[in-house]
Amino acid sequence: MIVVVCLNPALDITHRVPAVNWAGVNRPSAVYARPGGKGLNVARTLHALGADLLLTGLAGGITGAGIEAALGELGVPTALTPIAAETRRTFTIVDGGGAVAAFHEAGPEVSAPEFTEFRGQYEKAMDGAAAVVLSGSLPRGLAARTYATLIETAAAAGVPTVLDTHGEALLRGAAAGPAIVKPNLEELENLAGRRLSVPDGADRAAVAAAAGRLLSIGAQAVVTSLGPEGLFAATGDGYWRARAATVAGNATGAGDATVAALVHGLVLGRPWDERLRHAAALGAASVAAPVAGEFSHADYASALSAVAVNRDEVG
Amino acid sequence: MIVVVCLNPALDITHRVPAVNWAGVNRPSAVYARPGGKGLNVARTLHALGADLLLTGLAGGITGAGIEAALGELGVPTALTPIAAETRRTFTIVDGGGAVAAFHEAGPEVSAPEFTEFRGQYEKAMDGAAAVVLSGSLPRGLAARTYATLIETAAAAGVPTVLDTHGEALLRGAAAGPAIVKPNLEELENLAGRRLSVPDGADRAAVAAAAGRLLSIGAQAVVTSLGPEGLFAATGDGYWRARAATVAGNATGAGDATVAALVHGLVLGRPWDERLRHAAALGAASVAAPVAGEFSHADYASALSAVAVNRDEVG
Repeated sequence: MIVVVCLNPALDITHRVPAVNWAGVNRPSAVYARPGGKGLNVARTLHALGADLLLTGLAGGITGAGIEAALGELGVPTALTPIAAETRRTFTIVDGGGAVAAFHEAGPEVSAPEFTEFRGQYEKAMDGAAAVVLSGSLPRGLAARTYATLIETAAAAGVPTVLDTHGEALLRGAAAGPAIVKPNLEELENLAGRRLSVPDGADRAAVAAAAGRLLSIGAQAVVTSLGPEGLFAATGDGYWRARAATVAGNATGAGDATVAALVHGLVLGRPWDERLRHAAALGAASVAAPVAGEFSHADYASALSAVAVNRDEVG
Repeated sequence: MIVVVCLNPALDITHRVPAVNWAGVNRPSAVYARPGGKGLNVARTLHALGADLLLTGLAGGITGAGIEAALGELGVPTALTPIAAETRRTFTIVDGGGAVAAFHEAGPEVSAPEFTEFRGQYEKAMDGAAAVVLSGSLPRGLAARTYATLIETAAAAGVPTVLDTHGEALLRGAAAGPAIVKPNLEELENLAGRRLSVPDGADRAAVAAAAGRLLSIGAQAVVTSLGPEGLFAATGDGYWRARAATVAGNATGAGDATVAALVHGLVLGRPWDERLRHAAALGAASVAAPVAGEFSHADYASALSAVAVNRDEVG
């Protein structure tokens, strides 16, 4: 069983309004509402892959209950710990020309007893866990060490972890020795202290150096997306690249699909080249799907046959 | 037990944004989300009055589940029939100067089998029902005769009904013989075919004539609010007025408080003057409360002692 940790889920609501009246009552022509947040996208992708998983995390209020109900309808096995504060919503208004305004609620404030309750459930879930994914931002009230603590708990139970977050939570988490961290390029730029893209693409030597810093801190492997130049991995015994055919579409959630494929490959015992082949293909299939957290199996299969994986000698 | 029927509930969400950016991402400084819709306000008010009640109606999707969860937290006994379509939300953005834009989702489309399922549950609830309240608009897919049908079902079980709706559903419903209908003044103006307010207040003779039309169709009594001039009632054996002291505040939901008091008085066997005294007082206490569906018992008690009730000879 893969335990997916989503401490700050969201409900993403979109209203399509042909011509917005910013000073009166609008009646949207279409409304979309979906459970969101990075961990939820990972869980939905794993579920679509047929993986045995348990979605854990924190949910509160009307929105938290709504997210749980929607996950139930999707058939995603879920055990969210209740919190008093309201799970966040994002609300986006789009007109004919695309998104015009968005309203992002702050995440809930989580109390110490609530997190203690979650930790108890998380520790129990380590029984029978094959891997843990920790994905997304931390809600208010939780220390930057939070992911590090959860990684240590998993390690004590012999369970490998995959971490996808940013900032201080990433650095603290990497130091706890996760099997894989998946920073985005912007995060590696923060670590490098400079931009890592050059006119003809990413500066892979500099990317490798920034990834090396995460390895030296404690991460066992680092995987990042270079966008159209594919996935780049630093695995401790060298570097890899995996490039899928370029796909037009919606890149939101592609990183979550990649994380889902990486943890799935870890659990299945796939070697690195196969893990990365699936991760690049699933990322591409996710871009082709209109909604984050979804993909078509046909797109996945065809992308898989077109991925080029090779050792990268940049280091 | 009072059975409250709410076929088109809503979740009312408000985002407070100090200065709105209509072309980017906003981070609201405060967020409010409450179960709304007229029937829900009636149910919450009855619950606060200590009345034995059951909230019935239709709920679907993430929002429906969220509303049910919130009602559970409030302790309101609820048995909503599930529907496939999503219960509606209203989303209001306010800045320092008050509401600036609102986005009202269309109600769900209700299928014939879903309404049949609801009717089955409703018929069962008639066992042990002391009265029924039918409140608010009808969702799409339900015929204008819907309330009339539910009133007839109640009448067959010897259960009196209170109807608060508008348009064709009001006219059809009135013809089915409810104990009380509560149109607003605008609705009586539609029936009269002209405005019923005159420079120094409401034209009560014309209001009485419009109410008389609803009585002649089949309603046993008509109660309407004349705003600052209080409640006006046509009870079949004459006319009444009940005036509370003027209160500043939020009039949204005051009509629902009035309906709650009317059905409560009906069930308690209060004579008309006492029903109207409580209805006017609870309406005033509701205006004083910042949120629809809520009131303070202290405000209610003090308003009650100040209500003037008298026979009105306008007819």
